[in-house]
Amino acid sequence: MKPAVSPKDKVWEYKKFFCKARLMDLTAGGKIVVLNEDDAHENDLYASHRVILRTESGKEAVALIDLSPELVRRGEIMLFSEVAEELEASEDERIEIKHMQRPASIEFIKKKMDGFPLSAQETETIMRELMENRLSEAELASYITSLYIRGMSDDEVVGLTEAVVKTGQTLQLGKRPICDKHCIGGVAGNRTTMVVVPIVAAAGLYIPKTSSRSITSAAGTADTMETLCSVSLDIEEMRSIVRKARGCVVWGGALKLASADDKLIKIRNPLSLDPTGVMLASILAKKKSVGAEYVVIDLPIGRGAKIPDKAEAKKLASNFISIGKRLGMKIEVLVTDGSEPIGKGVGPALECIDVLSVLNNTGPWDLREKSCRLAGELLEMAGKVPKGRGFSAAQSILSSGKALAKFREIVELQGGKKNVKIGDVPAAAYKHKVVAQSQGRIFHIDNKMLSKVARAAGAPNDKAAGVLLCCERGDSVKKGDVLFEIHSNSETKLDFAIKALEGWEPVELRKVVLGTVG
Amino acid sequence: MKPAVSPKDKVWEYKKFFCKARLMDLTAGGKIVVLNEDDAHENDLYASHRVILRTESGKEAVALIDLSPELVRRGEIMLFSEVAEELEASEDERIEIKHMQRPASIEFIKKKMDGFPLSAQETETIMRELMENRLSEAELASYITSLYIRGMSDDEVVGLTEAVVKTGQTLQLGKRPICDKHCIGGVAGNRTTMVVVPIVAAAGLYIPKTSSRSITSAAGTADTMETLCSVSLDIEEMRSIVRKARGCVVWGGALKLASADDKLIKIRNPLSLDPTGVMLASILAKKKSVGAEYVVIDLPIGRGAKIPDKAEAKKLASNFISIGKRLGMKIEVLVTDGSEPIGKGVGPALECIDVLSVLNNTGPWDLREKSCRLAGELLEMAGKVPKGRGFSAAQSILSSGKALAKFREIVELQGGKKNVKIGDVPAAAYKHKVVAQSQGRIFHIDNKMLSKVARAAGAPNDKAAGVLLCCERGDSVKKGDVLFEIHSNSETKLDFAIKALEGWEPVELRKVVLGTVG
Repeated sequence: MKPAVSPKDKVWEYKKFFCKARLMDLTAGGKIVVLNEDDAHENDLYASHRVILRTESGKEAVALIDLSPELVRRGEIMLFSEVAEELEASEDERIEIKHMQRPASIEFIKKKMDGFPLSAQETETIMRELMENRLSEAELASYITSLYIRGMSDDEVVGLTEAVVKTGQTLQLGKRPICDKHCIGGVAGNRTTMVVVPIVAAAGLYIPKTSSRSITSAAGTADTMETLCSVSLDIEEMRSIVRKARGCVVWGGALKLASADDKLIKIRNPLSLDPTGVMLASILAKKKSVGAEYVVIDLPIGRGAKIPDKAEAKKLASNFISIGKRLGMKIEVLVTDGSEPIGKGVGPALECIDVLSVLNNTGPWDLREKSCRLAGELLEMAGKVPKGRGFSAAQSILSSGKALAKFREIVELQGGKKNVKIGDVPAAAYKHKVVAQSQGRIFHIDNKMLSKVARAAGAPNDKAAGVLLCCERGDSVKKGDVLFEIHSNSETKLDFAIKALEGWEPVELRKVVLGTVG
Repeated sequence: MKPAVSPKDKVWEYKKFFCKARLMDLTAGGKIVVLNEDDAHENDLYASHRVILRTESGKEAVALIDLSPELVRRGEIMLFSEVAEELEASEDERIEIKHMQRPASIEFIKKKMDGFPLSAQETETIMRELMENRLSEAELASYITSLYIRGMSDDEVVGLTEAVVKTGQTLQLGKRPICDKHCIGGVAGNRTTMVVVPIVAAAGLYIPKTSSRSITSAAGTADTMETLCSVSLDIEEMRSIVRKARGCVVWGGALKLASADDKLIKIRNPLSLDPTGVMLASILAKKKSVGAEYVVIDLPIGRGAKIPDKAEAKKLASNFISIGKRLGMKIEVLVTDGSEPIGKGVGPALECIDVLSVLNNTGPWDLREKSCRLAGELLEMAGKVPKGRGFSAAQSILSSGKALAKFREIVELQGGKKNVKIGDVPAAAYKHKVVAQSQGRIFHIDNKMLSKVARAAGAPNDKAAGVLLCCERGDSVKKGDVLFEIHSNSETKLDFAIKALEGWEPVELRKVVLGTVG
């Protein structure tokens, strides 16, 4: 007869021991503790094993162990900051150390590897253990790799979305209808959110918008909004602002919505692995968490974009729509041109100036048009205007100055200046002009290269750093005309950015002959 | 035109900075350094990023970074032991820090994920970068998961084997023919290697045997041999011993054969993931590294064994044989009964006593018979005796005392006592007898449970700890008859082991009724 507990786990239930806490002011980027090597081996623990720690007051944490032959004395346990905080441990406190049992998730990850779909319950267990730090980086990588190779059914995506929502807080706004927007990214500039939110809110709809900070780009919407006001709000502050102004633009990372998603992203990014089902769940969980009913998705396609062509975009769009329906959200998808930047600025302050210009009815036409199309879709979906009238309605709200007034209201509520204006945006101390080496017509402007140049110049940490485009595709230029400016508050970084340009052509003139072959 | 260097990597080539080394006596189980948080962010580095470190004398190492706001001052870098050793760094030394470029392997891992086979060259790159610590745990987990889901062609297994061989040293014995043996494990006791090696060497063949230490079992062959002599030899010592005695039993981990394999095992074990192709390559790379020409493989099957049945064993055997052929090795596979322990002892010293007893022609019949079958195969393959005569030839060598003499010669050359005998094996201070609760016949003896009980008692660190079986399957016992003894040098651990038995029946009496259902 099979024993009730597997032999693998059972013996170690009896194995627990105690050590005195030594606190260490050191962030490890994960939950790590250090044990004396002899203590560890005597208790059958080795480097990278996981243990459950428990304080006398009953606080528990899961941690990975490191070993030291000398630094940590026998009978001591050194706690890195993350663990000490979770345990609320104090120096010399007695900590109980226990072998961690094999997480239940491992069986489900194996099941997915073997090609069987996971039930909602199984996915929920994985997300729960992920949140409890019970899964190693390797186990999570294996999970994501399996989802990528095996794919996910609609049922599985819905299950994952709901499981992710459960790992975090949800916004209980008590008002409706609630709108939201999302762009899958990859386009430099492109700060439509900061224009869409005030238009939609000014029209009387609710749009509690959470945005991200930059990971590899020169600025995220949260970084850009932050040049004017705070974006690190908690959920109660957000709720109160949205109930007043109908909209906000806050950093999603500061809230605890869909918490598991942030952890999944940490695994997906280094592997450059973004299985479609996980991406869908990740986006929709955040929308679901704020109670969104009407959602417009911006899918940029073309050269250098995340999605190569329209066929691919259509497939993804129909996924969004069908999964959204099952989650109680009406979704519209706009396929947009993602081959070149939107707006003139690349970097937080420069992008912010584009936004304020559009709200003042003077800004770049592409940012204005795209924002009005996105806002217009939401106005139509929520029934504010008849089908086909959204775009012009959005334009009117913009032209009337109502969107600017709404934006200023939101900025002030988020702790920024009253009546914010372009002059409030910080400017860089150093600038460098990049000029055309010959005459010709602008053939292509490269999103990725511009973002990298802007980052080399210090963006997004240096808010004023970035690139300011002085031309657009199709323009005729003469030798010596300024193509773009690099801005920075550090001469050294400006120099980095200039050096980074060697051998690159972020703004490309048309060439008839592309090179020799063979 | 596409730039020669991808935008992703290019900018950071210019980014390097210098810090003063602070040495830290702390093993991290990986290559880890700690930077001041502000220094790191200013250089676009975040927790878990990888950097290339370089000392003034030109030593390089790849490391993961941790961040601390206070413990590490600006301009300093704290080095964990593994990194300090690799760099041969001294306190206050100036260390150059550079962003690491994206490893080339990631593209190949992605290719395998997408279902395309990898060339020998691509696999070699992955193994090289693995050895250089350029790949994260997550990337490796993703690689192993992909190999598991997608499977591997014979070409790929051969490519992986050869790539793994290249990552380590090889034994240049200068003598032949060279034999080797391997068991895929999972059976308690089963110390055939220590009997096979002296028989084969006494017959005039070379058998430079490397063995492993226990991971989850109560003892590995290296742990058992170590009760009598040193097993941590370097490759030159091994070579000199084998040239003298024609055989040895050393710990593979101390040599630097097939180094990549040890790193792959570190990933496979926590995931319990052992893709067949990786397992084949792992085993055969070690055989290839010692120059083996004739190899016998022991595949235990049955209840609780790694391989469930004969059909599965046959498939694996034909893989071994065909891959071996392509690598220039003649391989024979013996399918054996892996459902119960081999020998009476479980734990290093107790297993060693079984081995010495067999060499003295008094030991457990099953260990004797199995060892002679394995040795006999090698005698036949290498042409020492005609086909069909290997088993009896091996038995004669054992009966004649030549195998015992050869074993003693090897033990002495490896630094053990002259004329080693059973009395030299350490005995435990505490013993506990487990008796039959009723009369009946022994129906099953469970490998895994016995191993766990032996480990709870302190094996393999406590050499004398373990379980001594006092019965075998089929025996009739009366209530109160001793089924097995638990040995330990620690009363506390003996107690752990006894507690671990609660609800378990490692030695199971036959039951006609197995329980009620529903």
